[in-house]
Amino acid sequence: MQGELLERYAKLVAGVGANVQPGQQVLVIAGPHAAPLVRAVAAECYARGAVFVDPWYFDPHVKRVRAEEADPDTLEFVPSWYPKRLLELGAAHGSRISISPNVPPGLLDGVDPALAGRDQLPSLQEHFSVINAKTTNWSVVPWPTEEWAAVAHPELDPAAALTKLEAELVYVLRLDGDDAAAAWRERGAELKEVARRLTERRFDALHFEGPRTDLTVGLLATSRFTGGGSTTVDGIDHMSNLPTEEIFTSPDPARTEGVVSATKPLDVSGTVVEGLRVRFAGGRAVSIEADAGAEALRARCAKDDGASRLGEVALVDREGRIGKTGTVFFNTLLDENAASHLALGNAYATAVGEEERSRINTSSIHIDFMIGSDDVAVTGLTSDGGEVPVLRDGRWQI
Amino acid sequence: MQGELLERYAKLVAGVGANVQPGQQVLVIAGPHAAPLVRAVAAECYARGAVFVDPWYFDPHVKRVRAEEADPDTLEFVPSWYPKRLLELGAAHGSRISISPNVPPGLLDGVDPALAGRDQLPSLQEHFSVINAKTTNWSVVPWPTEEWAAVAHPELDPAAALTKLEAELVYVLRLDGDDAAAAWRERGAELKEVARRLTERRFDALHFEGPRTDLTVGLLATSRFTGGGSTTVDGIDHMSNLPTEEIFTSPDPARTEGVVSATKPLDVSGTVVEGLRVRFAGGRAVSIEADAGAEALRARCAKDDGASRLGEVALVDREGRIGKTGTVFFNTLLDENAASHLALGNAYATAVGEEERSRINTSSIHIDFMIGSDDVAVTGLTSDGGEVPVLRDGRWQI
Repeated sequence: MQGELLERYAKLVAGVGANVQPGQQVLVIAGPHAAPLVRAVAAECYARGAVFVDPWYFDPHVKRVRAEEADPDTLEFVPSWYPKRLLELGAAHGSRISISPNVPPGLLDGVDPALAGRDQLPSLQEHFSVINAKTTNWSVVPWPTEEWAAVAHPELDPAAALTKLEAELVYVLRLDGDDAAAAWRERGAELKEVARRLTERRFDALHFEGPRTDLTVGLLATSRFTGGGSTTVDGIDHMSNLPTEEIFTSPDPARTEGVVSATKPLDVSGTVVEGLRVRFAGGRAVSIEADAGAEALRARCAKDDGASRLGEVALVDREGRIGKTGTVFFNTLLDENAASHLALGNAYATAVGEEERSRINTSSIHIDFMIGSDDVAVTGLTSDGGEVPVLRDGRWQI
Repeated sequence: MQGELLERYAKLVAGVGANVQPGQQVLVIAGPHAAPLVRAVAAECYARGAVFVDPWYFDPHVKRVRAEEADPDTLEFVPSWYPKRLLELGAAHGSRISISPNVPPGLLDGVDPALAGRDQLPSLQEHFSVINAKTTNWSVVPWPTEEWAAVAHPELDPAAALTKLEAELVYVLRLDGDDAAAAWRERGAELKEVARRLTERRFDALHFEGPRTDLTVGLLATSRFTGGGSTTVDGIDHMSNLPTEEIFTSPDPARTEGVVSATKPLDVSGTVVEGLRVRFAGGRAVSIEADAGAEALRARCAKDDGASRLGEVALVDREGRIGKTGTVFFNTLLDENAASHLALGNAYATAVGEEERSRINTSSIHIDFMIGSDDVAVTGLTSDGGEVPVLRDGRWQI
């Protein structure tokens, strides 16, 4: 992506995405390969009046080198200024832009998953506290790379794979139309309206039923469905993901029961997990099996007490563009917006009422996995035993 | 540079250069283009027992975008965590590796020099305090890039220019021999011996005489010549520059008199200054003229009170390899080690006795410019009026 298309993308990221305000500091987390987008976004942020654009280039190859070479007992060490960078940005009410993937899918293949799981960078526990404080307007957006394209389109030669991935990103980001900003404002309004209707129903639980899936996810009394954008404590609207097609909430971490099968592979910080099957009892993932990569996920779910409980349940309809490409991107930003999904680990405090914030799940991890497809029926269970169809054949029923 | 040569270079950098110790944090400052060296150095640091390698990729293109787009009144803003990163590394007695150039020569050409001079990043005032505290073992080393090669060898096409620059770096880094580490230990010992003899003489001043140069630089009573390597407060030997060919000290900031002409162009954070002529009176640069780029240097010399006074005087003989290439690299690391030079701005506290640390120059800048050649005679002036030849025709006389 370059030239006029790159400029339009940068405008979308700094505008409808992060909605950078005059006087703000902007932290941009990206791999060194994403430098062209970082530079274009920086120009756009400064043009919007940003006081400082701070590129945090995270090098996934150095992460791999660390897992291979460093003393295993040191892999959880994080320098003192890493959390400060986030917390001080939050205190300054700055903006955050994250360019995905930080760690290309498959980059950690061959590294002992138990070791790879100890180094969580560039993720930091403090990300969640800054998100939950709603002090920063932020957006996660994709950038195509050769390494990623090779995993998404292994049947093509490297140049063709990159060209195809880039074209898919232009499509799912709605950059092919005249006015991507207007298209996202419209889609955001739709998602907000469905979220409002879902919240109104005050379901006690959601039930997922489909091939090898029969799962009930309990909700909290104040679980609030959210989608189509967020607003900071200062009233700044932003879209935390671009593309975004999901409606999500924070469930009851103690009331998930049954079995669920992933409908797409997922990438766990560089290790691809395929054919994932998880059994829950009392809210906890008591069994994690997969055709490949199960150990990488198990290692992360052993990080802390909340790492094996759910922090998010999200619904996606068939109207989004990601699912229509038919591609598995091995990238959570895209794949989670192609299908209904769950996340193990930390929950979003903003998705429940103030009085229940202490009940949501807390963890140092947050790993999404896709469980939805047109074959998976989603039903709302009411506290008086009623059943209300929510998604059938990928279409909203409410 | 790649493969076995890159590995040998990385070993030299982490070994004889920064001398990374088990348990240390290592901050690596580099442009995104230097990722191959950063990754190889990171592997070497971890193999030596480093606890964490922290790549700080500084993007010079974002610096240019800022100078072009940002509100001029915001250009001196630096986020609170930038100095913390350095100060906390110093407090932890970590290691620092800096890959030069951060900002390729000429990258800021066309930007208003008055604006470009306000943003000093990636330089920070705190660099000097960490250096002067001698808590970190550190090294600055070069990495070839296309942009740099185009400036150093404009007569060649881009690929040939890069090939030539890379070959020159291999030569000046002594990587062409069997054992670069041994070669540097030997050269370091020579430089230390000359520095010891120069210090013993207790000169009151140094006099430079050559074409359009007639300059006297007063020394402090405890000015100590240093070269060939440094030692931290913990006793860790390291070479702060690779290549290093200089013997330097901190002069009396109040006693520089006369005129001096630069013998090579210099790059001031992206602006090339050619044909520089500076007049000093009472220690202060009272006139800065040049055939090109004078304004960039003048803007920096107006940063603070010490920015127009000398912080360093350095002598270089003809035995080093950099001068032998005949190339002007437009890169201070290399060019300053090709010729005797002065630096405007902050001085090294470690080059004077404890009792005179309050007398050396302090500033937020430190800009080297080359004033030596085989045609420039350097003479030591003793406090009783004696004159002792120091360098004649590029050879040591003492």
